[in-house]
Amino acid sequence: MIYFNCDYNEGAHENIMKALLKTNMEQTIGYGCDEHCKHASDLIKKFGDCPDACVHFLVGGTQTNETVITAALRSHQGVIAAETGHINVHETGAIESCGHKVLALKTEDGKITAKQVRECYEAHVNDGSFEHMVQPKMVYISLPTELGTMYTLDELKDIYSVCKNNGLYLFVDGARLGYGLSSGNNDIKLSDLAENSDVFYIGGTKQGLLFGEAVVITNDHLKEDFRYIIKQKGGMLAKGRLLGVMFEAALCDEDGNACMAFEDTLYMKMAKKAVGFADKIRACLDSLGVSYLVKNDTNQIFPILEDSVIEKLESEFVLSYQERVDETRSAVRICTSWATKEEAVEHLCNTLHIMV
Amino acid sequence: MIYFNCDYNEGAHENIMKALLKTNMEQTIGYGCDEHCKHASDLIKKFGDCPDACVHFLVGGTQTNETVITAALRSHQGVIAAETGHINVHETGAIESCGHKVLALKTEDGKITAKQVRECYEAHVNDGSFEHMVQPKMVYISLPTELGTMYTLDELKDIYSVCKNNGLYLFVDGARLGYGLSSGNNDIKLSDLAENSDVFYIGGTKQGLLFGEAVVITNDHLKEDFRYIIKQKGGMLAKGRLLGVMFEAALCDEDGNACMAFEDTLYMKMAKKAVGFADKIRACLDSLGVSYLVKNDTNQIFPILEDSVIEKLESEFVLSYQERVDETRSAVRICTSWATKEEAVEHLCNTLHIMV
Amino acid sequence: MIYFNCDYNEGAHENIMKALLKTNMEQTIGYGCDEHCKHASDLIKKFGDCPDACVHFLVGGTQTNETVITAALRSHQGVIAAETGHINVHETGAIESCGHKVLALKTEDGKITAKQVRECYEAHVNDGSFEHMVQPKMVYISLPTELGTMYTLDELKDIYSVCKNNGLYLFVDGARLGYGLSSGNNDIKLSDLAENSDVFYIGGTKQGLLFGEAVVITNDHLKEDFRYIIKQKGGMLAKGRLLGVMFEAALCDEDGNACMAFEDTLYMKMAKKAVGFADKIRACLDSLGVSYLVKNDTNQIFPILEDSVIEKLESEFVLSYQERVDETRSAVRICTSWATKEEAVEHLCNTLHIMV
Amino acid sequence: MIYFNCDYNEGAHENIMKALLKTNMEQTIGYGCDEHCKHASDLIKKFGDCPDACVHFLVGGTQTNETVITAALRSHQGVIAAETGHINVHETGAIESCGHKVLALKTEDGKITAKQVRECYEAHVNDGSFEHMVQPKMVYISLPTELGTMYTLDELKDIYSVCKNNGLYLFVDGARLGYGLSSGNNDIKLSDLAENSDVFYIGGTKQGLLFGEAVVITNDHLKEDFRYIIKQKGGMLAKGRLLGVMFEAALCDEDGNACMAFEDTLYMKMAKKAVGFADKIRACLDSLGVSYLVKNDTNQIFPILEDSVIEKLESEFVLSYQERVDETRSAVRICTSWATKEEAVEHLCNTLHIMV
Repeated sequence: MIYFNCDYNEGAHENIMKALLKTNMEQTIGYGCDEHCKHASDLIKKFGDCPDACVHFLVGGTQTNETVITAALRSHQGVIAAETGHINVHETGAIESCGHKVLALKTEDGKITAKQVRECYEAHVNDGSFEHMVQPKMVYISLPTELGTMYTLDELKDIYSVCKNNGLYLFVDGARLGYGLSSGNNDIKLSDLAENSDVFYIGGTKQGLLFGEAVVITNDHLKEDFRYIIKQKGGMLAKGRLLGVMFEAALCDEDGNACMAFEDTLYMKMAKKAVGFADKIRACLDSLGVSYLVKNDTNQIFPILEDSVIEKLESEFVLSYQERVDETRSAVRICTSWATKEEAVEHLCNTLHIMV
Repeated sequence: MIYFNCDYNEGAHENIMKALLKTNMEQTIGYGCDEHCKHASDLIKKFGDCPDACVHFLVGGTQTNETVITAALRSHQGVIAAETGHINVHETGAIESCGHKVLALKTEDGKITAKQVRECYEAHVNDGSFEHMVQPKMVYISLPTELGTMYTLDELKDIYSVCKNNGLYLFVDGARLGYGLSSGNNDIKLSDLAENSDVFYIGGTKQGLLFGEAVVITNDHLKEDFRYIIKQKGGMLAKGRLLGVMFEAALCDEDGNACMAFEDTLYMKMAKKAVGFADKIRACLDSLGVSYLVKNDTNQIFPILEDSVIEKLESEFVLSYQERVDETRSAVRICTSWATKEEAVEHLCNTLHIMV
Repeated sequence: MIYFNCDYNEGAHENIMKALLKTNMEQTIGYGCDEHCKHASDLIKKFGDCPDACVHFLVGGTQTNETVITAALRSHQGVIAAETGHINVHETGAIESCGHKVLALKTEDGKITAKQVRECYEAHVNDGSFEHMVQPKMVYISLPTELGTMYTLDELKDIYSVCKNNGLYLFVDGARLGYGLSSGNNDIKLSDLAENSDVFYIGGTKQGLLFGEAVVITNDHLKEDFRYIIKQKGGMLAKGRLLGVMFEAALCDEDGNACMAFEDTLYMKMAKKAVGFADKIRACLDSLGVSYLVKNDTNQIFPILEDSVIEKLESEFVLSYQERVDETRSAVRICTSWATKEEAVEHLCNTLHIMV
Repeated sequence: MIYFNCDYNEGAHENIMKALLKTNMEQTIGYGCDEHCKHASDLIKKFGDCPDACVHFLVGGTQTNETVITAALRSHQGVIAAETGHINVHETGAIESCGHKVLALKTEDGKITAKQVRECYEAHVNDGSFEHMVQPKMVYISLPTELGTMYTLDELKDIYSVCKNNGLYLFVDGARLGYGLSSGNNDIKLSDLAENSDVFYIGGTKQGLLFGEAVVITNDHLKEDFRYIIKQKGGMLAKGRLLGVMFEAALCDEDGNACMAFEDTLYMKMAKKAVGFADKIRACLDSLGVSYLVKNDTNQIFPILEDSVIEKLESEFVLSYQERVDETRSAVRICTSWATKEEAVEHLCNTLHIMV
């Protein structure tokens, strides 16, 4: 079977594994206070042009989301998110289990707008019963979204502007950040993200590391005592240096040398390759006249296919079932990753040409 | 000013006050373990025809909702409710602060259907990612709803049937139960409610008591250690007997004598009177051709009026602003209660006749 | 049976009941935003000489404690308290259920010292593993303590000084505040308390009201959005004016007139009378050579008696069993209250003279 | 510098790293549902002689503790532990942040007794105020304890017997389980542990894996929906197979072959070697007449040394400061691990001979 169902089927890029092996018997202090974490943090602050940011390394996405949100909100405050947002649907109520309501906004493509955010905020604070409602205090967006779509820089700036005008924090989930930043029409740079949000993270788990998410906090109000919350939420890895070592390697170039621009890092090269493969599959589907649940330019593709076609594809390929579209057709998710092989992409395209 | 904005503007019915005065210097043990609570509990079990139920008396609605839901759910479980449900919008995220997601269902009239409940349940458990989603374990409905509408007995039975078939608890918020049970077309009796739910409550705060909600637990699984949760959530009144004394008085007839049928209790008589007044106001509005945000038969009315009319009414009446309907019209809430005076109703109707 | 087991066996002082009756049919807005609450709040600010304080009225003690502590602490912060503190032992883990650890300090008499607080704080923040431990952020003391003892003004100032020097909030639980302030050797005035704490409350439940605790917040950092937390924790009474009305009456003199000094209020007069009765019982016990679990001057007495004596007393009196002291003796709690009758005290003393 | 401060300074045993490399590009499904996890689980069930157990792999200890405890307890229930227990002091209040009180018992050596557990339970449920106190429902012990001491099999059986008689779950934290099971006088076998507890875990993080804890649930009541809780608490690793792969390798013999007895696994061989080194250091300290904070036989040693000696040692060795003992002496922790080198141990012993 060939897996196109997600971007975390394999282990890690060979450079990552080499870095782990090379540093394996080093003796370092624990809990992320080592030199590798410090170095990786410095690289991120350099590439993001945010020298005053605080960078923390966590293991996974749900953990990161609940840690950031717990650190930011008081008991009566909630977080605005798209109804499709990962925190709203796929984290077993982790945010609520930390005590906070997710205020879900309607979306067709996984994105929310500055206008929606403002209206939601106003509906909660301008009502006479405001104290009887959750107080919105944070906006959570994913970049790219769970449906693979990207915000433009202008959209991001608009949302952040509404946030700043209303005392809301903007938190950007970058579990697949590299796949977004390296996608076709993207005009957001890492430094734009650092400038236009209060906290965001750079996903490693789905982008060539064994695991790991690098949280970048730029708003001073969110920095205090953050490590306490990491520890409390179970996210403080005893051998924290593993995260530092992996991000260090991902933030070098493909030969393991220091590099000047974020675009030249292994992290971005891996992402670009995956998106390139996704573009190939999209071109193939386009040529076959296939329509999409949502159109996007990143490493996830959501084609709508006849159920019979899906069934046949599943004899060779593992895809991810998304949702029923009509009586005979469903949307599936096809995912490429840093580990996708060219021949697998070609085989998929050939098969699609035959079957569709 | 004449208040029609809600049903908790005044204190308590004079019989309630008399009962409090009469028992004021009695010495009893605390925390609801006294004879008055026992007696009131026995009356409820008799009127609800549910001799094996456990009855507990709490102070207010939000407190009751978070206590019942905390007692019923494990950490990963959520509660299905209408998007307009009190727990979803007007409790400052109390349920989430106890760790549980409210799974909100669309509604136009405040009601949800058995079909919606089944589909929501199935969407959460039949998906391959089920462990990544909150597990629905309880359904919360309000009787009457926050929009004053009533379920029919058949609708209630259908919802409860879906619940039982899927291992969901049915929890009925009866903050305005009397106003519902005594309304025009209602075909649900107290014993029907006891038979077709796992836990419900009989609201006192909005129905002539100073405060108080009587929780009736019929499902054995929900009975264990319930008092611990009451105490933990801050709902265990030191002088718990106050609740017993007030419910005792409300469950006698208007002369303070024991009565055979629930319909004959002061509680139901007060509710019937309030609904009668609401019917008069509805008749008046109907005669004027006024339309409604939602039509219903209970003590709340949601007419759509010109903003200029609303403004004029507000020089004499306190109403509750509900929502903007279009550029010149809004919906308001007019509420009658056990304390509403006939002359106030007449004055409102006369004024409406002049202004609309 | 004559009850000496606690100070909440009866309803409320007749003046309180009269005030409730008198205002019963007033129409007011809900949730504590009415004129009675405002007036009661003003009286408290006047008597406490704290014009900038925020005053909120809640129903009960556990509710108050969890509301204040939730409002004050972030997720990783804990509250220092005596091991005998109400929040540590008798609230079914309410504080922990809101997410916060109670850091318990040893005590013999219910009191903790400034030195203990400082040492506890330092042990948690000066340790290399500080981020792995709860961060102390609040100190909770009861005035009087659960064992009836009082802090001196100097002790209070010393604790508050340690708090201020280390960024800790001082929260004073005054569930029995009046009994403390009116006790024999007390040198703390209400204004001292306002000046030497960040938030405290004036208990009504155990001091002649049907229920009610008046929270006084003097530290600006603790004021923001407090009403949201009250609502979320289930403490916002729909008919909030009941609390205002009762505190208004308690803060007048015994004839219902305004008074200049806190000492002259009904609240303090009721307390003084109860403490006077307790002094009589103490004098009787002293004359009989009885020893005490803890010595104190407030309305609670903890004599150590032979089990056989206790058994005999219990044929006429309801006492509160405290703890076994040795094979033949136990400590009991004898409690006087605003409602205690002189003849009951005399009968108890006479009986003790016969039995001990 | 030579590190003796803890047992997680290095990465992983070379066999573990080889296994990760070997399986790195395998495509597997995520979240621990892969074949490696299944195989590792089977090995644990075989070695523990508990074929009906459910085994789950988590990343770290705090995460594991909060997941197990959340899964087991209702809102009003607490967990009994030694005051030195990891959950009580070194998890930043993680258990409380999940809503549960840790009921701490006094201890000198990190252990608690069956008698203490029974007394604590009885004090909480036999008191008239039982509903006002947390209900004990689980006992947490560490094997070995945080102070390196071991329970005997009889002690374990006694505690479990008290648990079963009183409806308490017994949860054994085995973060350093191997070091305990392979220590000198230990008479507990893995199967004994499975038989005499309801849930326990086999620590990997401190015993030669990069990270990982294997939770073994033997009590059916604790099995239901456990994976939901893992996900909610942020512990479900996307590439869950990493945990399976590492435990697989650790549960083979040192040559990577299947083995019959748990004692022959790489896991136990690594532990035995570490304990052997600790024995050498203990022998050295004994010969020098050094006393200990606590005596034990596992991989942690707590000698009491002159501060001047500690200072000198710290020019070459990283130790862990434990606590001040008197004006001139402190206790330190010396930790050996699977990665400790013989020459480091010898150098330490030689240095001790010179300095002490």
